[in-house]
Amino acid sequence: MIRTMAVVGTGLIGTSVGLAVSRHGVTVHLMDEDETAARTAAALGAGVLAAPAGPVDLAVLAVPPGRLGPVLAEQQLRGLARAYTDVASVKAAPERHALAGLADASSYVGGHPLAGREKSGPLAARADLFEDRSWVLTPSEATSQETLNRALETIALCGAVPVLMGSQAHDSAVALTSHVPHVVASLMAARLQHAPREAARLAGQGLRDVTRIAAGDARLWGDILQSNAAAVAGVLRELQTDLSDLLAALNELSAAPAGEPSPGLARLVDLLDRGIAGMGTIQGRGGAQAAGPVRLRVALGDRPGELARMLASVADFGIGADDVSPRSGGASGLEVELGVAPLSAEDVLRRLVRDGFEAARADRRVLTGAMP
Amino acid sequence: MIRTMAVVGTGLIGTSVGLAVSRHGVTVHLMDEDETAARTAAALGAGVLAAPAGPVDLAVLAVPPGRLGPVLAEQQLRGLARAYTDVASVKAAPERHALAGLADASSYVGGHPLAGREKSGPLAARADLFEDRSWVLTPSEATSQETLNRALETIALCGAVPVLMGSQAHDSAVALTSHVPHVVASLMAARLQHAPREAARLAGQGLRDVTRIAAGDARLWGDILQSNAAAVAGVLRELQTDLSDLLAALNELSAAPAGEPSPGLARLVDLLDRGIAGMGTIQGRGGAQAAGPVRLRVALGDRPGELARMLASVADFGIGADDVSPRSGGASGLEVELGVAPLSAEDVLRRLVRDGFEAARADRRVLTGAMP
Repeated sequence: MIRTMAVVGTGLIGTSVGLAVSRHGVTVHLMDEDETAARTAAALGAGVLAAPAGPVDLAVLAVPPGRLGPVLAEQQLRGLARAYTDVASVKAAPERHALAGLADASSYVGGHPLAGREKSGPLAARADLFEDRSWVLTPSEATSQETLNRALETIALCGAVPVLMGSQAHDSAVALTSHVPHVVASLMAARLQHAPREAARLAGQGLRDVTRIAAGDARLWGDILQSNAAAVAGVLRELQTDLSDLLAALNELSAAPAGEPSPGLARLVDLLDRGIAGMGTIQGRGGAQAAGPVRLRVALGDRPGELARMLASVADFGIGADDVSPRSGGASGLEVELGVAPLSAEDVLRRLVRDGFEAARADRRVLTGAMP
Repeated sequence: MIRTMAVVGTGLIGTSVGLAVSRHGVTVHLMDEDETAARTAAALGAGVLAAPAGPVDLAVLAVPPGRLGPVLAEQQLRGLARAYTDVASVKAAPERHALAGLADASSYVGGHPLAGREKSGPLAARADLFEDRSWVLTPSEATSQETLNRALETIALCGAVPVLMGSQAHDSAVALTSHVPHVVASLMAARLQHAPREAARLAGQGLRDVTRIAAGDARLWGDILQSNAAAVAGVLRELQTDLSDLLAALNELSAAPAGEPSPGLARLVDLLDRGIAGMGTIQGRGGAQAAGPVRLRVALGDRPGELARMLASVADFGIGADDVSPRSGGASGLEVELGVAPLSAEDVLRRLVRDGFEAARADRRVLTGAMP
């Protein structure tokens, strides 16, 4: 059981860890070279400013990635804690340094909570920042089981989901899922710098979403990209190839006579299709799927507003327009299929019939209902 | 006053227009080559399936951009409406076709509502889809004032904000704010297509935001990009230059000895900084700024949790952590500055004093409060 903890570096992540574990009765000692930051974290309730009397159970080093090596070596020398972890978003280089430079590499395990905000600093901290987020640990061959367990307990106190990975695999993965997306957002946002005023009026949610993470601290992200430069460059080179192909296709299309079919269009649609396929890999939580929905068939005829009335009828069951597929029923007008969770299918059917609709399970022949 | 309208093409946009103007008592005639789509729109309450008896006041052509020219010419020949507008996201080419091919170019004004969803089809439609969104109109020299006014009235009925622009300026603007962002999202999403399973577990909100719009219909977006190919390619070429520079910097950084300063880092941070600057152009609604906040100074000392208590005290006024800047008060512990709307500054000050804090306007010398 962890009873005492040190948080070194009271920015967004360190302060959020302090807030989260303090709620569970852990005594957290807050340390930061920037006195104002430490005082702010303490004033938020993330812990105390007093130095610990002896070694704490675990120290969380939440310092910029470039400072991690020296801080880790120094604090281990001082005997700050019995075990150490960090929160840097790159893991292979810190692990190398730890294995090479530490008196005792068994007390260190690399860590990376997959949580963040576009804001930084202790004032952006939240006790629930890590809830249900992945938190990677990258134990080395030297990491002791005791060290790993203390880190796992901290993750549990923060409400996060631990993921064990090798440090190299971690760095390739975050290049793809975090570092390159940040670069892409910045590349897009940089194009807006000299945009005409009227263009800005046309900016919509799509543009805001694509660029949102570009607002992150440039100095900190420079550090992050530098420490994972090779993996980031690898992904960006592949993206560059796609971009060159796309530009060639666009040039061809803008040179082609208007309205004529052009092979450039197919190449363009191909890239868009590959993007849609790529999104499939990050949707949902993966793993086994629940049983598919039961399909109900409802006859609506052609009375205006019937579909809206049906959606209102089944709204209680959490059924929305997304669950509806329309199909024409010939002379009898519109018919729709409704995807419904298996357990509530019978209730939904009863509700539809009560409200005057003809409805049936799609796998049965006869529509029931519309009974007076 | 518009009393009758035709919507040609009952997808997301057309059906949403029908839903929005029907609420105001306009009779909407729904037309679509796809009978199921038209029936679905009618069943949602977007209008009726019956053909109009005579010319309607306005026809909204919500067909794919590639179909616009022929549909416009055909419907004008049939005398469907007294005025026509469209919703295509590219405006210069349709305008050229209209001016060249129409019997009467005065009855057409190009339109582009800046609203959309990643979903398409009538079932994704919403009556409030356009509320408070920009809706561009691109009147040509031939457009009559009567035509322009009918389009403006439709925009008002949909709750949107009209923006008048030239068709060329519009196309350059949307290349920057909509089409290139879509391409960038697709380029990023395409990288995920063959991502290892474990990488997907590290996908966070940032990646989801950057790629969200890549889910849009590939065929439709292919059409859009084709019809604005030159402007899109222009922006992408500039982005390509930044990307090449960035790759050179990353290659240099990954070759440099670890821990040594490198000019590559400065180039990297420069791009990130330019991204942050670019985001400034699309934040807020632009135009004149309201009077700046009044700054209050609050002394918190070093009691743990004091800042959290203060935030709770002023939460009623809509003041959050974002409005707080901490500063160390030397031996007296933490002091913070609070940005407060001028009109509520006195009330906030009274609340702080009531709750036992020492507080004052930052432009005055003496902290008041903490009176028993």
